[in-house]
Amino acid sequence: MAVYTDVAADDLAAFLAPYDLGDLLSYKGIAEGVENTNFLLHTTRGSFILTLYEKRVAEDDLPYFLALMAHLAARGVSCPQPAKTRDGTICGTLSGRPAVVINFLEGVWPRRPGVVHCAGVGEALARMHLAGLDFPHYRSNPLSVGGWRPLFNMAASRADEIQPGLRDFIAAELAHLEGCWPQQLPTGVIHADLFPDNVFFIGDTLSGLIDFPFACNDILAYDVAICLNAWCFEPDLAFNATKARALLSAYQRARPLSEAEQAALPLLARGAAMRFLLTRLVDYLDVPEGALVKPKDPLEYVRKLRFQQTVATIRDYGVEAAGAVA
Amino acid sequence: MAVYTDVAADDLAAFLAPYDLGDLLSYKGIAEGVENTNFLLHTTRGSFILTLYEKRVAEDDLPYFLALMAHLAARGVSCPQPAKTRDGTICGTLSGRPAVVINFLEGVWPRRPGVVHCAGVGEALARMHLAGLDFPHYRSNPLSVGGWRPLFNMAASRADEIQPGLRDFIAAELAHLEGCWPQQLPTGVIHADLFPDNVFFIGDTLSGLIDFPFACNDILAYDVAICLNAWCFEPDLAFNATKARALLSAYQRARPLSEAEQAALPLLARGAAMRFLLTRLVDYLDVPEGALVKPKDPLEYVRKLRFQQTVATIRDYGVEAAGAVA
Repeated sequence: MAVYTDVAADDLAAFLAPYDLGDLLSYKGIAEGVENTNFLLHTTRGSFILTLYEKRVAEDDLPYFLALMAHLAARGVSCPQPAKTRDGTICGTLSGRPAVVINFLEGVWPRRPGVVHCAGVGEALARMHLAGLDFPHYRSNPLSVGGWRPLFNMAASRADEIQPGLRDFIAAELAHLEGCWPQQLPTGVIHADLFPDNVFFIGDTLSGLIDFPFACNDILAYDVAICLNAWCFEPDLAFNATKARALLSAYQRARPLSEAEQAALPLLARGAAMRFLLTRLVDYLDVPEGALVKPKDPLEYVRKLRFQQTVATIRDYGVEAAGAVA
Repeated sequence: MAVYTDVAADDLAAFLAPYDLGDLLSYKGIAEGVENTNFLLHTTRGSFILTLYEKRVAEDDLPYFLALMAHLAARGVSCPQPAKTRDGTICGTLSGRPAVVINFLEGVWPRRPGVVHCAGVGEALARMHLAGLDFPHYRSNPLSVGGWRPLFNMAASRADEIQPGLRDFIAAELAHLEGCWPQQLPTGVIHADLFPDNVFFIGDTLSGLIDFPFACNDILAYDVAICLNAWCFEPDLAFNATKARALLSAYQRARPLSEAEQAALPLLARGAAMRFLLTRLVDYLDVPEGALVKPKDPLEYVRKLRFQQTVATIRDYGVEAAGAVA
């Protein structure tokens, strides 16, 4: 929620010159995206988003997800498309940062996701997974099961500051997940961060998916599990099975989950909760005392993880097993 | 530089319903304005700014500056115009805050103001002063000479933490300013905060003035003095007489300064430096240690004040006295 890097108008105009985006009319730093600096540009040709990539997004990975957005958009998935310069370059440099311009996607993200939004995101996620099947590039997921222990090691000694017993709780769960993480499920391109603030709606209609810097190749159903955690809990962290049913049913109408995927879903949801618990924990402990910008609460994902530990089968998410929609 | 208050899409749509602004397509929290929360809206009828008023802007003062923007815009000063609901209301309530929608003004503010920008702001300021002459409302300036001692009293005991000797320096200067602050100069509506981030340009052409929450009735030449301090120093805080000449000459082509105003300008510039020194000092001391958002540096205005103390006449700003433009 911040502009980490300001940009002078002259520098921006020079940066934009090789693109066919018209003349710059205005640009505003926008308070979305916790990882990067984003500006909303108005030019004589329309609206665009300029992103300056800050920490956590390795420059080497940029070509992967820029190509991915172009690939998905070409297959009818509504997502931003990166602008190319007249000589075909996508990524430039501005204020010392890798910088990319994408077209602006109209729509608002749901602050209070309802059943209709959960159905929308379920369908869009499945369509994204299908559209990604022939994407020719590969990027492993640094935040899948293999990436969790290094995160835990960074935070373990101070985890009990957040909640007494948290260190042991995570240690036991992590050992369990590492011991039985599924290896044979269908994989493909996943978004890996499809939270409500990355999904736009105009009225009740989904208008697009944004923010692909965590996209990678991983278990497709793991992406579904991330969404279950991100979309189907109430503000008081009670699980809402009606929303989960809407999400899973809409997903399965476009891409039915196999029996193996269905059976693994509760475990994948535990892993998905672990992933966000750990990154939030590290971020939380990394913030100086008294900071004005509060990091996201890791305990939210402790609660979600505890819920997922109680789930036995996909029926607990409100849907019938084996692909039959409830 | 922050979004202090988030807004849900449903709440925003309900808030917008009584206006004729079309259907909401998107809204982004923008990182401009240190006092308020601002969103850039796209609707089917164009672009707008939604402001939620946070601290420091008394709700009682809102009608003054909303009426002022409408008044100035009607007289050809390019500034945002507040939108009215179908029953003529300007100010509503959203997320518990007074909230106003204005039309979006295209343009970019100069991060590195040059001579052309200084000339632009000088002319625009004079035209704003002329257009405000028949504005029928009155608001005294809480941050003129009478408001400085209370600010000093808030910060005095800790001023030397910022710089040894700062307390005595301010005390002496404040006593001087209180003793000889001019009483007979022409008054009218002043912007009172016309820093570069409140002045938009497209190319080299000024496209508008924004952000009127400090507007009030006060000495017109005091507004000029604020601009001298805000626009005519280099990043190393060296005074740039070429920029000052451009600003003052352009101002005087539209509204020549009287001999009395010219004679008082160096004193007014000391006062203008004192005003921003004091508010920055209070803000600086008010911020918790370790905060991520750094307040503006009060020492910048100590340096500017020390320069203004050395100015004897308007000639030191690069212009000939008595209205003759150098």
